[in-house]
Amino acid sequence: METFDRLREYSQELIALHHTLALLQWDQEVRMPRRATEGRAQQFAVVSSLIHRREVAAELGGLLAEAQERQEGWSVPQRALLRVMRRRYEQSSRLPESFVADFARLTSQAQEKWLTARERSDFSLFQPALERLVEMARRQAEYLGYPEHPYDALLDLYEEGLATARVTRIFTALREPLVGLVDRLAGRLAPLDFAEPFASAAQERFAEELLRAIGFDFNRGCLARSAHPFTTTLDHHDRRITNRYAPHGLDYIFGALHEGGHALYEQGIAEDLANTHLDDGVSLGIHESQSRLWENVIGRSPAFWQHFFPELQKAFPVQFRGMALARFLRGINAVQPGLIRVDADEVTYNLHVLIRFELEKGLIEGRIQVADLPALWREKYRRYLGVEVDSDANGLLQDIHWAHGSFGYFPTYTLGNLAAAQIWQAYRRDDPEAEAAIAAGNLARVREWLTARIYAHGSVYQPGELLLRVSGEELSERHFLHYLDEKFARLLA
Amino acid sequence: METFDRLREYSQELIALHHTLALLQWDQEVRMPRRATEGRAQQFAVVSSLIHRREVAAELGGLLAEAQERQEGWSVPQRALLRVMRRRYEQSSRLPESFVADFARLTSQAQEKWLTARERSDFSLFQPALERLVEMARRQAEYLGYPEHPYDALLDLYEEGLATARVTRIFTALREPLVGLVDRLAGRLAPLDFAEPFASAAQERFAEELLRAIGFDFNRGCLARSAHPFTTTLDHHDRRITNRYAPHGLDYIFGALHEGGHALYEQGIAEDLANTHLDDGVSLGIHESQSRLWENVIGRSPAFWQHFFPELQKAFPVQFRGMALARFLRGINAVQPGLIRVDADEVTYNLHVLIRFELEKGLIEGRIQVADLPALWREKYRRYLGVEVDSDANGLLQDIHWAHGSFGYFPTYTLGNLAAAQIWQAYRRDDPEAEAAIAAGNLARVREWLTARIYAHGSVYQPGELLLRVSGEELSERHFLHYLDEKFARLLA
Repeated sequence: METFDRLREYSQELIALHHTLALLQWDQEVRMPRRATEGRAQQFAVVSSLIHRREVAAELGGLLAEAQERQEGWSVPQRALLRVMRRRYEQSSRLPESFVADFARLTSQAQEKWLTARERSDFSLFQPALERLVEMARRQAEYLGYPEHPYDALLDLYEEGLATARVTRIFTALREPLVGLVDRLAGRLAPLDFAEPFASAAQERFAEELLRAIGFDFNRGCLARSAHPFTTTLDHHDRRITNRYAPHGLDYIFGALHEGGHALYEQGIAEDLANTHLDDGVSLGIHESQSRLWENVIGRSPAFWQHFFPELQKAFPVQFRGMALARFLRGINAVQPGLIRVDADEVTYNLHVLIRFELEKGLIEGRIQVADLPALWREKYRRYLGVEVDSDANGLLQDIHWAHGSFGYFPTYTLGNLAAAQIWQAYRRDDPEAEAAIAAGNLARVREWLTARIYAHGSVYQPGELLLRVSGEELSERHFLHYLDEKFARLLA
Repeated sequence: METFDRLREYSQELIALHHTLALLQWDQEVRMPRRATEGRAQQFAVVSSLIHRREVAAELGGLLAEAQERQEGWSVPQRALLRVMRRRYEQSSRLPESFVADFARLTSQAQEKWLTARERSDFSLFQPALERLVEMARRQAEYLGYPEHPYDALLDLYEEGLATARVTRIFTALREPLVGLVDRLAGRLAPLDFAEPFASAAQERFAEELLRAIGFDFNRGCLARSAHPFTTTLDHHDRRITNRYAPHGLDYIFGALHEGGHALYEQGIAEDLANTHLDDGVSLGIHESQSRLWENVIGRSPAFWQHFFPELQKAFPVQFRGMALARFLRGINAVQPGLIRVDADEVTYNLHVLIRFELEKGLIEGRIQVADLPALWREKYRRYLGVEVDSDANGLLQDIHWAHGSFGYFPTYTLGNLAAAQIWQAYRRDDPEAEAAIAAGNLARVREWLTARIYAHGSVYQPGELLLRVSGEELSERHFLHYLDEKFARLLA
C-alpha cells in the first residue's frame, strides 16, 4: 500500500476509536442510568488507554517519518493530514505515560472535590486539589515545550500556534472599551420576563424548526436532551446536538443556535476528509466562532427575527401576545453585569473570560498562588464588572474547567467571539444582500458562504491561516468592538 | 496482585470492551442516522479486532494456565470465571485469524445479498453466498472440534454442552404431539381483531406499566424504540430493552414482556459478578426460557390477565369496550399455522424451529445441498404445518440467522420454551400460591424465586447443571407438552 493510504488507514482507525469514545460520552449525558456511572468510567478508561497506545505506537512513529520523507507531490489535504497526525503524535509522545496516568487520576479526584466544594460553596475544599492541578499543568507545559511563555504550551493544545503575548495584547485592547460599554449599556435594555411557562415539547419543536432553517441536516445527526447542551461527532455523517428546556426564558433558542452552529461546521466538512484527523473543526476558537456567529451575530440580529419573530409568536401566542419586535430584540440583547459566565450577555461575557485568563496566566507563571484566588476573583469582578461576589459557588467554583485540568481553554471563548465578528465582516463585504437574505428567512446563503470558506476545509489549514484566508487579516479585536458599537447604537436608536 | 485478581481485572477489561461494542449496536438500532452505517461498521470492526487481540493474547493464555494451577481453594464463582474465560479463550484460539477475517467479510457480504434476495423474493440471489457460508460453518466445526457430530460444535457456541443427538431426540419426541395439537386447535380460538388503531404513546405507557409490574428496574436500564425489539447490556447497572408499536394488534405487549424477561434475568445477576464474564445469562436457551416464561407462561395466562385486563381496558376503553376476559384470553392464545416464525403462536412456533433444525443438521452433515433448500422448505411446511409456501420471502429468506453465519442458533428458541415450562413446573411445586399471587398482581413473588435460583447465578453454572439444580431433572419436552395440554384444555373448557 502507498504511504499515504497507510497513513489514512491509521488515521481512520484512530478516529473510529475517538468516535466510539464520543458515543460513550454522548450516551452518558443523554440516556445512561446514573447507576452505571462507574462502569461507564471503566469503559472510558479502557478505550482511552487503547487509543493512547495507538497514538504513541512506534509503528505510527515510523509511518510518520516515512511519510515526512515522501510527501513531495502530495496534495494540500494530504500534507495537512500528515501535519495534524504528527502534531498529535508529538504531543502524546512528549508526555511520559506515568504523567498521563497521574494526571487522569488527579483530574478524576479533583472533579469530585470540585463538586463537593461547589455544593457547599467552600473553595477551601477544592484548594488542595487545585494546587496539585496547577503544579501538573506547569509540568505539562515543560514536557510539551513552548516558544516563550509556559502558558503558550497550554494555549497551543486548544488553539494551535496561539501565543500568550498575542492573547495578552488582544485582551488589553478589549478591556477598556468593554468596561466602558458595560457602563453605558447596563440597565438600558430591559430583559424579557415571562409570567406564563413554556411547554417543553413546544420549545423543542421550535428549536427543531430553527435548526432546520439554519440548515442542520437531520439525516446526518439528531437533537436530544441533556443537562448541559453540547455537540458531538460520532461519524462523518453523524453530528449530534443536545439542548435543554427550562420552563421560563428563551435560553433554549440560543442554546439550539449555538450548538447548531457547531454542528453546521462539522456537517459542512468535505466528504474526502471523512473520518480522518482532518474531519473536525480546526480549533476551539474557530469552532466557537461558528457557534457564536449563529447564536449571536445572526441569532440575536434584527434581520433574523424580522423573519422568525412571527413564527415564535405563532408557536407561543400567550407569551408573546402584543409584544413588538423592537421590544423583543432589546430583551434578547440586554446587557447586565452578573456573577455567572454562562448566563452572561455578549458584552460582559468577555470580561468573565478576561478575568480567568489573567488568573490562569499568573498561576502558570507562578506569580499567583492558588490560595490568593478568592481575593483576586472578588477584586477583578468588582473592577471589571462592578459586581460583588457573594459566594465561592457563584465565584471561582462556577466553572468545571480547572477541575478537568484545562488551563488555556477559557481564552478560546473570547477568541471565538472576535473571530465571529471578523468573519461576519468579511461575509458582508462579499455579499451586500446579506441582511436582506436573512430577513427573508434565507439562511442557506450565509451557510453556503461559510461552508465553502471554512466548514469544508475541516482541519486542513491551521486556525490562524484559515482566518487569514477567510478575512484577509489576522485575528483582531477591532471587528468585534465595531460590531458591538453598531449593534447597540441600532438597538437604542 | 493475586492470580484471581488479575484474572478478574482482565475479564473486566474485556467486558468493558464488549459493553462498548453493545453500545455501538444499541445506538445504531435506536438513534443513529442511517447515513452513518458505513462509519459505524468501521467502528465495530476496529473495536471487535481489539477485543479479538485481547481474547487470544499470549498474556491471557499464561494467566489462564497459572490460574488453572492455583485454583485450589477458590470459591465456586471464582472457578467458574476461570472456566468461562478458558472456554472463550480456547474457542477463539482454535479459529485461525485468517478464517475469522474471511468469515466476517463473508457474513457482511452475505447480509447484503440476503437483503436484496428477500426484497426481490428470489432465493437464487442468496444461494451462492449461503453455499459459502455453509462451507465456512462446516470448517468452523472442524476447527472447534466436537465429540460426535460436527453440528455439536456449533450448538455448543450457543448452548454449552448441548449435543446434536439430544436435540434430535427432543425434537423427535415433540413433532407428533405438536402436529396433533395444531390439528386439534387450529381455528378453534379466534384471534383478536381491532377496528380502532392504538395510539403509540399510550401503547408505550402501558408497556412501561407492565414492565414496572414485573419488576424491570428503570433505574438500572431503560426502554426505547427500535425496528426490532431486543435486550442488551451496557453495564451491570445498565440493561436496556427496546420495543415497537404497530397501530394494530397487541404484539407490543408480548414484545415488552419478552424483552422484559431477558432484562429481569440480567438485572437479577448478583453484584459480586459485576462486569465479568459471569455477569451474563448462561446460554441462549436459558435466556430464552426467561423471555418466554414472562411472555407466554405468565404473560398469556388467565391469572396474569385477571389482574391486568381491567388495566388494559382502562388504558384503551374504545378498543376493549364490552370484551370479556375469556374472549381476550382465547384471542391472545389463538393457534393458527402460518408461514412466518416470528408471528407464530406458542404451539406452531416450535414446528418452525424444528424445520430449521432438520435443514441445518443436514447441511452441516453434507446430506442436504443448499440448492435443495427451497423444495425441502416447501415440503416440510406442508407436512408439519399444513401450509403452502407462497414465496421465497415468506419462506427460507425470512430469517437473517444464516446470513449472519449462525447455524445451531435456532434450536435454542425451542429449548427455551421447554425449559420455561420445566422451570415453571418447579416453581409451582415450590409455591402452591403461585397463580393466586399473580392473579392478585403480585409478580415479585415469582421474580424473587427466579432471581434466587437462576438470575443471581449469572454464568456460574453450566446451562444443563443450572436446569438440573432448579428443576431436579435434565431438559425434557414433557413439561412443555403437559403445559400446552393443560392450558388449551382450560381455554376451551
